[in-house]
Amino acid sequence: MPIYNAPLEDMLFLYEKLRDNKNYNEIDKYKEVTTDLVKNILEEAAKINQNLILPLAKAGDENPTVLENGIVRTPPGYKEAYKKFIEDGWTSLSCDPKYGGQGMPRTVSAFFDEMLSSASLAFKLYTELTLGAYNCIHHHATDEIKNKYLPNMVEGKWSGTMCLTEPVCGTDLGLLKTKAVEQPDGTFKITGQKIFITSGDHDLTENIIHLVIARASDSPKGTKGISLFLVPKFIVKGDGTVGARNGISTGSIETKMGIKGSATCVLNFDEATGFMIGPKNKGLSQMFTMMNLERIVVGIQGLGISEIAYQNSLSYAQERKQGKSNNNKSQNGNADLIIEHADIRKSLLNMKSIIEGERALCFWLSQQTEVSLNHNDQKIKQEASDMVSLMTPVVKSLFSDLGMEITSDAMQIYGGYGYTKDQGIEQLYRDNRITPIYEGTNSVQAIDLVFRKLVNKNGDIIAKYIEMMKSDLDLNNEKLKPFAEKLKTYIEKLNLFTDWMKEKIQNSKDDANAASNDYLRVLGYVAIGYSWLKVLEVSYKDYSNNKDFYEDKIQTANFYFNRVLPRVESHYISAITGSKYIMDYKFN
Amino acid sequence: MPIYNAPLEDMLFLYEKLRDNKNYNEIDKYKEVTTDLVKNILEEAAKINQNLILPLAKAGDENPTVLENGIVRTPPGYKEAYKKFIEDGWTSLSCDPKYGGQGMPRTVSAFFDEMLSSASLAFKLYTELTLGAYNCIHHHATDEIKNKYLPNMVEGKWSGTMCLTEPVCGTDLGLLKTKAVEQPDGTFKITGQKIFITSGDHDLTENIIHLVIARASDSPKGTKGISLFLVPKFIVKGDGTVGARNGISTGSIETKMGIKGSATCVLNFDEATGFMIGPKNKGLSQMFTMMNLERIVVGIQGLGISEIAYQNSLSYAQERKQGKSNNNKSQNGNADLIIEHADIRKSLLNMKSIIEGERALCFWLSQQTEVSLNHNDQKIKQEASDMVSLMTPVVKSLFSDLGMEITSDAMQIYGGYGYTKDQGIEQLYRDNRITPIYEGTNSVQAIDLVFRKLVNKNGDIIAKYIEMMKSDLDLNNEKLKPFAEKLKTYIEKLNLFTDWMKEKIQNSKDDANAASNDYLRVLGYVAIGYSWLKVLEVSYKDYSNNKDFYEDKIQTANFYFNRVLPRVESHYISAITGSKYIMDYKFN
Repeated sequence: MPIYNAPLEDMLFLYEKLRDNKNYNEIDKYKEVTTDLVKNILEEAAKINQNLILPLAKAGDENPTVLENGIVRTPPGYKEAYKKFIEDGWTSLSCDPKYGGQGMPRTVSAFFDEMLSSASLAFKLYTELTLGAYNCIHHHATDEIKNKYLPNMVEGKWSGTMCLTEPVCGTDLGLLKTKAVEQPDGTFKITGQKIFITSGDHDLTENIIHLVIARASDSPKGTKGISLFLVPKFIVKGDGTVGARNGISTGSIETKMGIKGSATCVLNFDEATGFMIGPKNKGLSQMFTMMNLERIVVGIQGLGISEIAYQNSLSYAQERKQGKSNNNKSQNGNADLIIEHADIRKSLLNMKSIIEGERALCFWLSQQTEVSLNHNDQKIKQEASDMVSLMTPVVKSLFSDLGMEITSDAMQIYGGYGYTKDQGIEQLYRDNRITPIYEGTNSVQAIDLVFRKLVNKNGDIIAKYIEMMKSDLDLNNEKLKPFAEKLKTYIEKLNLFTDWMKEKIQNSKDDANAASNDYLRVLGYVAIGYSWLKVLEVSYKDYSNNKDFYEDKIQTANFYFNRVLPRVESHYISAITGSKYIMDYKFN
Repeated sequence: MPIYNAPLEDMLFLYEKLRDNKNYNEIDKYKEVTTDLVKNILEEAAKINQNLILPLAKAGDENPTVLENGIVRTPPGYKEAYKKFIEDGWTSLSCDPKYGGQGMPRTVSAFFDEMLSSASLAFKLYTELTLGAYNCIHHHATDEIKNKYLPNMVEGKWSGTMCLTEPVCGTDLGLLKTKAVEQPDGTFKITGQKIFITSGDHDLTENIIHLVIARASDSPKGTKGISLFLVPKFIVKGDGTVGARNGISTGSIETKMGIKGSATCVLNFDEATGFMIGPKNKGLSQMFTMMNLERIVVGIQGLGISEIAYQNSLSYAQERKQGKSNNNKSQNGNADLIIEHADIRKSLLNMKSIIEGERALCFWLSQQTEVSLNHNDQKIKQEASDMVSLMTPVVKSLFSDLGMEITSDAMQIYGGYGYTKDQGIEQLYRDNRITPIYEGTNSVQAIDLVFRKLVNKNGDIIAKYIEMMKSDLDLNNEKLKPFAEKLKTYIEKLNLFTDWMKEKIQNSKDDANAASNDYLRVLGYVAIGYSWLKVLEVSYKDYSNNKDFYEDKIQTANFYFNRVLPRVESHYISAITGSKYIMDYKFN
């Protein structure tokens, strides 16, 4: 079984030293969330993830969730672990105290999300979708609904889902067919089939609160006729207790490459009773309020799985002896630890420099998210929201893709052992492989970024982001200068690429479309580089207080700037060759 | 279940139009292998792979090979298919007619290897290792041994293995512990444990001929004390029939991420009777004669799996409707086939341009291999052998890595469906994932390339290769010119990188080591580009005879030169940053 030690030192470093967003620090309710408090929380979080959750990963992979006689049974140990998990209050970490939550900001809960992703993504999904549904209800529902459903969801007694996909519509939700027929009492009868519903059914909670998008009888075709409904597995009675079973059945569960402990369900709604959430025909935008936050969490999943893959391959490289390194002077054939080999070191530092850069970027994004949700000044709120919108597809796609690179590189370090099930490394690779797909494939994210997030009704968001990075480049600090100079070069390249992209969005959409994945990566690599620069600033300034830690940071950053950031070059060169030859091609 | 149609047109195009190696065409025994004969063979090969072998892929994945009471049982259908496979003579395709083979050159058998890899890699491995063992015995054993063992191996009644790896030694065979004690009759008693033995035991053949490396009692430590032994599962009697069971037992079989139909065995040798092959203490170099040919086949596996992944994702993209393309003028929400989307087209062309370029490179390499084995002129033979040595690690690593990229991209085109087991796409990804690991991990290949293949005792091989490419760059042909110009740029970059590498091999081995994977990729991308250039030459010259086919080639090549070849840039820039900061880093 893989080992896992939550990276508390790095997390607390970020929380203490990089909580430097003025707007974030103006949010009253988080002023009491001191580093000491966060330290206590994260230490407890580390314990539960390392001890209770981590063993569930292998258990779930070996004994996948099954559908037996209409009942979805989770893997051995899940029920007991879930009970302990909610008893200790982990589902409520980031929720509103009004409904029983602990009110922690995303700057804290994102660390918990990362740890839980490291320990067991399949288990995590049972709680993650509840939070997604919680957020959506919290934002859009009436007080009556909130009071009725949220406390049990916050407590974890009830779980939640997001029911979007249907057989003919995944990316393109305008095609959806699920119908909602209004009843005289104002409720709706929901009928249709939803597929790929994560945690759609299971035996961990007393009730499951489905958020379903469907089309009311008198709504128009396409995306403008979609409304959002709350459809509980069991009807909740007036006194808040669980009543009769609603008209929802589980048609089947998917057999998947990974996250086998997670139930991915086909749900059949047959005149199930539903309650409309928010205004009619606005379902998609309501759902996407929540989806966007969820997409950041998918990026964090990639980060978490990368972290555990790194830790294990490092540990293996420090145990396995094979071959002589270039500096081995032994004449008797003695082998070195493989960590002495330059290529293995390079591979490990590649992982580390990406992971820590991602974590820093994510911490910045968590602060922006909180500002976008909680700041008093509408303008500041909007600006933060635009930054969050810009970086959401980047974090979702890049972190999940790099999670594939990192888990794959970790397998390579294990050699043949990495391909066997015994080590648990190949499972990380299979589990992570869903992250570039779900919540919108990475290509869909890239297209969303290019066509909807660079420039929006509030202005030229990407220009603001680039301007912010540029204004932070301190070329007078001698120690930072080599890093800042290199970053400047790539910011310039991003700038050129952005100008090219803006022109193509207007005049040659296919060029923009074909270049969108490359653009997302370029923006992402530069954004991580910028996050590293902020880490470096602190590292040099605070150097004498924690020399070993900061020296490690500086060297790791050096790797990122030397060996990861240059990936920008090839993406840019190939992307700007356009798409005419691609669109003209005749596939047989 | 995935579809598969063998790419006969492309294969026959290569065989007919690119069999242009003068030295190859001087090999007498292949002069009768006409295009018509090859066409007949490949058509039959297509049938057996499409109809008989393809269904075994899913069967083997769902019902992995098992070890029951000491007996290894292959998946349902394997036995029947294997019987038909050998009856039709497919194991003998490339073997020496003297032992019952059909004597086909690698220019033909490589196509068969590709098809079989597309249809079922797990099944293929039962026959592939037999060929590996056949080649080794054919090269190194006495006539007595050859006569005794080869006919049944060629016929497929007996299979073969290569037993190298032990628990403490994979890459580093000098550490091996298996012992060989000489007996008065000149045979040896072999004792030790071998792991990761592909087809080490199974129920498909009457006997299994193991080729085992071990250390004789009086041999020195390290790689200079390794000898090669033939150790049959059942002792073969004087009359050639199968006798008593030898001292070999199957300890266990591995549970793996993919190729689950293939038996990966732990074999325990307990005073098993073995026969020394070739001179004492030269076992490693004998084994590597064969390993090198085997490594090319691993590259071909990556190519074959890429081909079937491409075919299926193309087919899905031509069926699945989702979203409007940029050119869709429909106002009623109608969706387009996803193949209308620029990003999807780009992804498919990326696959196609890599696959066809790889196939052309591989065809060139097959010709070189035949020259290296069969030409009458020793000097020509040696020169071809050096080219094969140079390109072997490139083909093994690059094709297997790009197989991961392509199977992954194919999954992305399927979206959520790609992650489920139903479509068989995720299986391609899992099956291919062994190819960057076995027969020497891709990093080991890269280090082998850099430290042993660029320059050897025969001279500066890489310089000859670069010179050959340069001399073929026809910048006077107006149509070829844009391609040739672009290739020239990247050949220059390869040249610079090579000079840098040669200097580092002398003066800073860690720099060379850390840059070796990047170097391998740069050489590989340029070599594929060069292969495309040869295809383009024919395409323009012969254009009027097959306009549609050649137009397709030109457009596909255009994609390669615009969007794949520029990957060279980032590899080069990051690699030449050296390794000091990598070696200095202190891992905790």
